[in-house]
Amino acid sequence: MNAQKNKLDATPSRGRHRLLGGLAIGGLAVSASHARAASELLKPLDVAPWTRAPGGPVLEHPYGVPSPHEADVVRRSARAWPVPGAASSMTPLADLHGTITPTGLVYERHHAGVPDIDPDLHRLAIHGLVRTPKRFTMDDVLRLPSESRIHFIECSGNTGNEWNGPSGMPVQLTHGLLSCCEWTGVRLSTLLEEAGGLTTQAKSSWLLAEGSDAAAMTRSLPLDRILDLALVVYAQNGERLRPENGYPLRLIVPGFEGNTHVKWLRRLKVVDAPLQTREETSKYTSLLADGTARQFVFEMDAKSVITRPSPGHRLTTHGYYPITGLAWSGRGTIRKVEVSTDGGATWRSARIDGTARDRALTRFHADWQWNGEPAALLSRATDSTGYVQPTREALVAARGVNSQYHYNAIQQWRVDANGEVRNA
Amino acid sequence: MNAQKNKLDATPSRGRHRLLGGLAIGGLAVSASHARAASELLKPLDVAPWTRAPGGPVLEHPYGVPSPHEADVVRRSARAWPVPGAASSMTPLADLHGTITPTGLVYERHHAGVPDIDPDLHRLAIHGLVRTPKRFTMDDVLRLPSESRIHFIECSGNTGNEWNGPSGMPVQLTHGLLSCCEWTGVRLSTLLEEAGGLTTQAKSSWLLAEGSDAAAMTRSLPLDRILDLALVVYAQNGERLRPENGYPLRLIVPGFEGNTHVKWLRRLKVVDAPLQTREETSKYTSLLADGTARQFVFEMDAKSVITRPSPGHRLTTHGYYPITGLAWSGRGTIRKVEVSTDGGATWRSARIDGTARDRALTRFHADWQWNGEPAALLSRATDSTGYVQPTREALVAARGVNSQYHYNAIQQWRVDANGEVRNA
Repeated sequence: MNAQKNKLDATPSRGRHRLLGGLAIGGLAVSASHARAASELLKPLDVAPWTRAPGGPVLEHPYGVPSPHEADVVRRSARAWPVPGAASSMTPLADLHGTITPTGLVYERHHAGVPDIDPDLHRLAIHGLVRTPKRFTMDDVLRLPSESRIHFIECSGNTGNEWNGPSGMPVQLTHGLLSCCEWTGVRLSTLLEEAGGLTTQAKSSWLLAEGSDAAAMTRSLPLDRILDLALVVYAQNGERLRPENGYPLRLIVPGFEGNTHVKWLRRLKVVDAPLQTREETSKYTSLLADGTARQFVFEMDAKSVITRPSPGHRLTTHGYYPITGLAWSGRGTIRKVEVSTDGGATWRSARIDGTARDRALTRFHADWQWNGEPAALLSRATDSTGYVQPTREALVAARGVNSQYHYNAIQQWRVDANGEVRNA
Repeated sequence: MNAQKNKLDATPSRGRHRLLGGLAIGGLAVSASHARAASELLKPLDVAPWTRAPGGPVLEHPYGVPSPHEADVVRRSARAWPVPGAASSMTPLADLHGTITPTGLVYERHHAGVPDIDPDLHRLAIHGLVRTPKRFTMDDVLRLPSESRIHFIECSGNTGNEWNGPSGMPVQLTHGLLSCCEWTGVRLSTLLEEAGGLTTQAKSSWLLAEGSDAAAMTRSLPLDRILDLALVVYAQNGERLRPENGYPLRLIVPGFEGNTHVKWLRRLKVVDAPLQTREETSKYTSLLADGTARQFVFEMDAKSVITRPSPGHRLTTHGYYPITGLAWSGRGTIRKVEVSTDGGATWRSARIDGTARDRALTRFHADWQWNGEPAALLSRATDSTGYVQPTREALVAARGVNSQYHYNAIQQWRVDANGEVRNA
């Protein structure tokens, strides 16, 4: 399950290693002629076998699929769950690039499986403390003004296996409950206006959001804090939502923990206090060292992680390596990312790729000359509020080790003298 | 082949219509229980059938796929081509949202089919007027500094079927040789530096780019004009390139016509003049009315199109409809989009969704109250150079009707009194 392909390994056995190590999702296309071509390709005037005969036709796949050579770039679970429908799968961050998560690789976290919803029969109700409660068909929603924004989404349980120290896991399994998409839909404020706006009774307003999955996944949200940014979306990365990501409707609350982005959204009820639903009492509270619990901790704090090199990769020669990774904050934009290659003794600024977007993944890069000695790679994010990503020690001092959720400490990857990268 | 789903049609038969009209790419999931649910969903306390039993498990698809209810959102060809490997397929713009094109729906244009390339055996050569010619493995390329940028790509033949007036085709088939992705790779300038930089002989520099498909698709490019922006990419929308989009390496020349974004890239040769390759003599030149031909016309001029409502959609009630579409320019950013609903008699500014990006698709929106009378919807883009998208009449006056390539005139969709939208 944790097979990782070895993108930095330049030894001749790499191709075979990747293919044997991966989870096959399509036919593998390595043939004897390719093996023969290996030596031919070293000649100055090489012509590869795939240049010598026409390739496959246009529209072989009306909806395209990845190359069979990338068959091991898939979602994976960190462990076996007792109930398959109440489980999670994780995004293969070590093998991804840029900031957009491919839609087929967006992480999953379900409480009662993935419902198969007919969009023509699906309805969204807006009710509670609104003047004219209303029920919307999908066509109704599509006839409202829309907008698109790129935002990350992170499960509050992401990286929870590092609370007690290095888990030994690769980045897909430590940080892979994290994805970033272009979301398209209708502003929450537009939908509330369509329902006549709030009644005058609505002084302190909360919003109950409920999914139509078999768990009726339900959260209470502080309306004042989400009204400017929240969207009810029907599309991600240009196309309709995927079933496992909430098809046909999902609430997006930029910067808030992932479970508040209620999938398969069936109703939004305006209420005057949080409803203390199952998911905000039995789950999604953080137990502190003194026995008290933090409840309604919504924003995901600034965080970063190096995705390449990361555990499972192996450095095969000394010399230059680009270090790259992701940074994000639920409270705004990323202002700065620093990188250390000596275990945190010294730090230098990483390059931000492009312009950092509000509450979206931000890609960073740093140059590194590896001299062949053991090294320890770390990254540290600072967001637009000035908040600096803490060390594990500082986080544990503030929250203890029972919090389970909202782990955002600096992550270290060790590089051994043999080039292996480990979470240790 | 040109079945279009009817997103704006709110009549009860819509769901059935969509499913019958579509190309099935997966199992359809409409059951008797869903049909029964239709009446139940009208009750105030409805519980849908998919809420009554657990759904499918996490990781049902380690690499996710669209909902079966979206099975007709696929690439299509405008016509049958004599050679299936030398053909094109088009992006279903009418069914898409935002600005990112889903990777599985990025348009295709091949000259000799899709090669099946083993990335471990693929090589990129940099040679010609460089100091130290060099051949790169994929691992070599991955060890260079990288960056990610969102850019559109448009085939120079896009919308070519409108040169002689309205073709009657829907927007997928008139404008669907157009897509937009986040691309990740290495700057062309970095690769040239790795090859020691240009020799002193290289005064007027052109770049020959060649693919490793069976057509050895080859173009000459003016180095000065592309050096700042061109990328050699290995990833699109976060993951490795798809086979039909150039796996494992592609040249991206932001704003230039699509055929210059050479796929399956095997070599880049610095030369001192364009090489007059097959593709820049037999193809990709524009025949003017006076018999002369424009050659090396690279930048795609500013253009826009309304994607919803568009042909195949039907307006089912009078009242408010959002108008939305896409605008882009190969010379910079989109500064303004105007919309007309009366055939161009009056115009008003559309809203730009978010911030317009350089050489990327820009989504625009406009509000419209349809009073039930026939209407004619148009959009007109202005880019950051001040260039205004021309009328068809002005374009034909300048270029005649034999140009075939670079058609960028204002597109009109007619709305009939019965709500049908047509390209007429």
